[in-house]
Amino acid sequence: MTVSTITAPATPVTRSHCLALDRDDPLASKRAEFELPDGIIYLDGNSLGCLPKGVAERVGAAVREQWGADLITSWNKHDWFTLPGRIGDRIGTLIGAPAGTVVTADTISVNLFKLVAAALRLRPGRRIILSDTGNFPTDLYIAEGVLGMTGQHELKLVAPEAVASAIDESVALVMLTEVDYATGRRHDMRDITRRAHEAGALVLWDLAHSAGAIPVDLEAAGADLAVGCTYKYLNGGPGAPAFLYVRRDLQEALASPLSGWWGHAEPFAFTTRYRPAAGITRQQCGTQPMLSMIALDAALDAYDRVDMGALYAKAQRLAGIFIGEIEWRCGGFGLTLAGPRDLDRRGSQVSFHCPEGYAVMQALIAHGVVGDFRAPDKIRFGLTPLYTRFVDVFDAAVILEKVMAGRLWERPEFRLRSAVT
Amino acid sequence: MTVSTITAPATPVTRSHCLALDRDDPLASKRAEFELPDGIIYLDGNSLGCLPKGVAERVGAAVREQWGADLITSWNKHDWFTLPGRIGDRIGTLIGAPAGTVVTADTISVNLFKLVAAALRLRPGRRIILSDTGNFPTDLYIAEGVLGMTGQHELKLVAPEAVASAIDESVALVMLTEVDYATGRRHDMRDITRRAHEAGALVLWDLAHSAGAIPVDLEAAGADLAVGCTYKYLNGGPGAPAFLYVRRDLQEALASPLSGWWGHAEPFAFTTRYRPAAGITRQQCGTQPMLSMIALDAALDAYDRVDMGALYAKAQRLAGIFIGEIEWRCGGFGLTLAGPRDLDRRGSQVSFHCPEGYAVMQALIAHGVVGDFRAPDKIRFGLTPLYTRFVDVFDAAVILEKVMAGRLWERPEFRLRSAVT
Repeated sequence: MTVSTITAPATPVTRSHCLALDRDDPLASKRAEFELPDGIIYLDGNSLGCLPKGVAERVGAAVREQWGADLITSWNKHDWFTLPGRIGDRIGTLIGAPAGTVVTADTISVNLFKLVAAALRLRPGRRIILSDTGNFPTDLYIAEGVLGMTGQHELKLVAPEAVASAIDESVALVMLTEVDYATGRRHDMRDITRRAHEAGALVLWDLAHSAGAIPVDLEAAGADLAVGCTYKYLNGGPGAPAFLYVRRDLQEALASPLSGWWGHAEPFAFTTRYRPAAGITRQQCGTQPMLSMIALDAALDAYDRVDMGALYAKAQRLAGIFIGEIEWRCGGFGLTLAGPRDLDRRGSQVSFHCPEGYAVMQALIAHGVVGDFRAPDKIRFGLTPLYTRFVDVFDAAVILEKVMAGRLWERPEFRLRSAVT
Repeated sequence: MTVSTITAPATPVTRSHCLALDRDDPLASKRAEFELPDGIIYLDGNSLGCLPKGVAERVGAAVREQWGADLITSWNKHDWFTLPGRIGDRIGTLIGAPAGTVVTADTISVNLFKLVAAALRLRPGRRIILSDTGNFPTDLYIAEGVLGMTGQHELKLVAPEAVASAIDESVALVMLTEVDYATGRRHDMRDITRRAHEAGALVLWDLAHSAGAIPVDLEAAGADLAVGCTYKYLNGGPGAPAFLYVRRDLQEALASPLSGWWGHAEPFAFTTRYRPAAGITRQQCGTQPMLSMIALDAALDAYDRVDMGALYAKAQRLAGIFIGEIEWRCGGFGLTLAGPRDLDRRGSQVSFHCPEGYAVMQALIAHGVVGDFRAPDKIRFGLTPLYTRFVDVFDAAVILEKVMAGRLWERPEFRLRSAVT
């Protein structure tokens, strides 16, 4: 592929400065814990996290030794039965959730259904689920599904910045994604939770782009409910089971409509009537996919002894350099930053509004930088500090400049849309 | 362990006869396609199927080459996006379901919730979900969960033999498990479906103990809805994703309350309103656990070119010998057959009411025969003809006789209950 020759402009930082930052990075050694793809700069760990070393071996052993050799006895012998709760506790340490308040199960969508439906029952007489237009679409779709069954509620959507002022005593549940999947904008969890509680509403936080990315303290914020994803920053593998959180003092009052046998007080008594288990266990429903669950458990080793504050500090520094370079190099091509400029109000990803963004991202991928496109016009980059270096974001910005300056995205093959991007 | 010396009685069959049956078995070669545990007779494939050869390699390659190397591009490059539907079509060939009517996703419990809630909307004004006391408990629990949300319906339970006569015009949905998990008793799918349709009701079949075990022809029976399990007879691995079936002409009318983005007509348009996809795809909800999904896809190779009629014929012959031997050898110890004696009215498993059944099963496992116990009093054995030999069921009966005759189950260690059996 022919790339236009460009003269390097004076830029906010230099490549050698980035190399120096990498040398001084206290998290630099974590990169060696991942199997990273050859020859590309992967900035899509907010969509599918990279493969931690050790996972392949653990999964292989689980297939051969647990499933293959020990078969049904593995439910006890290898503690499959307790794994969803044990993984939940591990994730809990990353999001400020005490032991016994998180369980790993199902998908975010399914877990949202459980919690939204259950939360509405705790606020009889209140009609409104309040969310914002920046929420991830499936969260809104699931709320629609709940409303369709209750026939008594309404989903109210406001702009993200209008959420706090829209909370009043008609609101049963405030349902938000903390970090906007498209822009990286971050809600103020403490402030919104406090305002919701003052109005007597419950709050449910979707941590899909928070868990493993930014410091979260559910307990300190007083959050009622949360869900989250394990295949993005937590590197659990494609479609790894999601998690959910219920504040301890709400657990016994919260009745999941997905009242399956794994949430029963005595699943192996095989009684005909449902009786929910104590604690977070009642939020389980059916038998979980153990191979994917075991991969997730192995993957979480990469987060052992990681300080989330230090991780986020690196993410912000990566973002600062990346934003600066892109604006310097590509601002003239119509790229503008999505979301706030204040790094404290952002998660760990960066998006730009970009004319012809779909084709630009395809061209960028073809030139070795993997991000993704989010309709209608954003090119999106996940900065995952466990394995992303400062020099990576610098080089990515240089390559994006080449793509823009050379109009490399104009080739027809970059404009054909595939099913998933 | 000391085993009482017993004189072999004259029995219905001989071991050498069983060895001869194995030599003549047209399915005998399938056994070589499985990694079977050493030194035990595994009669619990109706709880967790054995590991097919080739699965470990396929899963290992998926971890390293798809997740590890190709990362996010695997959704297109390795067709992850279409895998739930493609596996659904493969399962469809085993249960008489045309292409495009089955999808693999979530758990049986979650899929039941989708279909029960959606079915009730198709029969407004009818209050009753009819099921039987032999249904698997989670099916009943999930129905309870749906009822708790609609506030307008009632779950009516009758004895299995009373189902047909209990169908009347108050019934919105008949919800049954075709083969009783505890006794092996099999409902007459065609007859009950016909009666339900005559009364204007819909029918949902749980095929957990049918798929891969007995011939099922959903289309010929006119079944409306079905769910099923892939980790039992289909050997998909622990907690492998479940499947669901919707008759083609019902698909566009059926609105899942679990309206997640994977069921959206344009999931990557990221619109704020839900618009269901066409066909069976709308029954998907969230991102599926791909490692477990890929294991299932590989495992299904063992069913390629298997004639379900021939498989069931072997299952019945295995059951005939096993029942005959156990009754002959152990009838004097109080064991009595659960479920019907007519093999055409049974699935592919055999249970016996057994005094001290829990301890008996623990002792039996300790002596190398793995079945399971189902409360309150049944010892249960899955006869999975792809890898179970005639000599296996003969030997298992001989060992059970030793356990009963020697009262080997009386040891204290066999009476301690663990969490899962």
